[in-house]
Amino acid sequence: MDKKPIRILGIDPGSRLCGWGLVSSQGPKIEHIDNGVFVLTAVESLPDRLGLLMQSLEDVLERYRPKAVAVEGVFQHRNARSALILGHARGVAIATCAVRGLDVAEYSPLQIKKSVTGTGRASKDQIQQMIALRLGLKSIPQEDAADAVAAAICHAQMLNAPSIPTIKTKKRSKKSMDAALLAIARERGMEAK
Amino acid sequence: MDKKPIRILGIDPGSRLCGWGLVSSQGPKIEHIDNGVFVLTAVESLPDRLGLLMQSLEDVLERYRPKAVAVEGVFQHRNARSALILGHARGVAIATCAVRGLDVAEYSPLQIKKSVTGTGRASKDQIQQMIALRLGLKSIPQEDAADAVAAAICHAQMLNAPSIPTIKTKKRSKKSMDAALLAIARERGMEAK
Repeated sequence: MDKKPIRILGIDPGSRLCGWGLVSSQGPKIEHIDNGVFVLTAVESLPDRLGLLMQSLEDVLERYRPKAVAVEGVFQHRNARSALILGHARGVAIATCAVRGLDVAEYSPLQIKKSVTGTGRASKDQIQQMIALRLGLKSIPQEDAADAVAAAICHAQMLNAPSIPTIKTKKRSKKSMDAALLAIARERGMEAK
Repeated sequence: MDKKPIRILGIDPGSRLCGWGLVSSQGPKIEHIDNGVFVLTAVESLPDRLGLLMQSLEDVLERYRPKAVAVEGVFQHRNARSALILGHARGVAIATCAVRGLDVAEYSPLQIKKSVTGTGRASKDQIQQMIALRLGLKSIPQEDAADAVAAAICHAQMLNAPSIPTIKTKKRSKKSMDAALLAIARERGMEAK
């Protein structure tokens, strides 16, 4: 029996820019729906920014009605001041979804990178390229939006198979990463960047 | 011309307990309306707690329709982990009010303590007693609720007079603080605890 498709929203919360990305997951098949970035720097004060974040996120939830949400967890602690600021944005993103009864899953940056690129050492740039390649996007998404899509993909894979299939490499150089990207691109008949 | 009364909501956000307190301010006159604590430990996960915080706060905003909000700012940074957790709750509290178009003011713990007790060195216990005495409450509010009421009082005083009248003492002992509380109690014909 085929599983029904499920819409998953990935969020990469930040106090200045907040990335979001929507995918549809049906078994092993993952399709891209939309992605974007909320630019919160348009308003000055912290309350206005957080209010804008909540409003923008509510609009996306209203428009796309996802069934599940994935947010990147914070496991590497920065200093207390930046942790507090990041906490504000994360809290707003998580609560805005939770209050609607949506399940919000958290994944470590390592889990997310591994599920998308096969390695926990991928650079921002490589994640952006891999997202575009895997989902067959015509343009490379902005960096925070790509991270959000990556979180959604990670959750889709978790829903589909509790153990994430990853390429087990302890160290993967930028060179071998680029080679992997190229291989995927060839497989799909696309031009690698 | 008399100023119109304005309802001010004070919030003391926390990830386990969140205090709230409502006062009505008309010129120098400050009256207590209600106070309480959201107990967020009834639910397990972080998303559920933050969702519960948002929902509970929305209920209070709906019921009392305050015109202004005051939140205690974080100026003494704890460690990164606890700052992140506190940030979540603060972000939710601030955004829930800001998204409704409410002005959210932040005050340092020092400003709040000074505006209520005349000293920045007051203990939790002293703030609770002072709140009860100043507002003529029949019972001493819970500690987080008292902090929230104190934030609301601080904002009321700021709205009424830009320069807060405080008793200037560099060091104030517990003894002299108790004496000050007793003096206020006598002035009001109340029995000090």
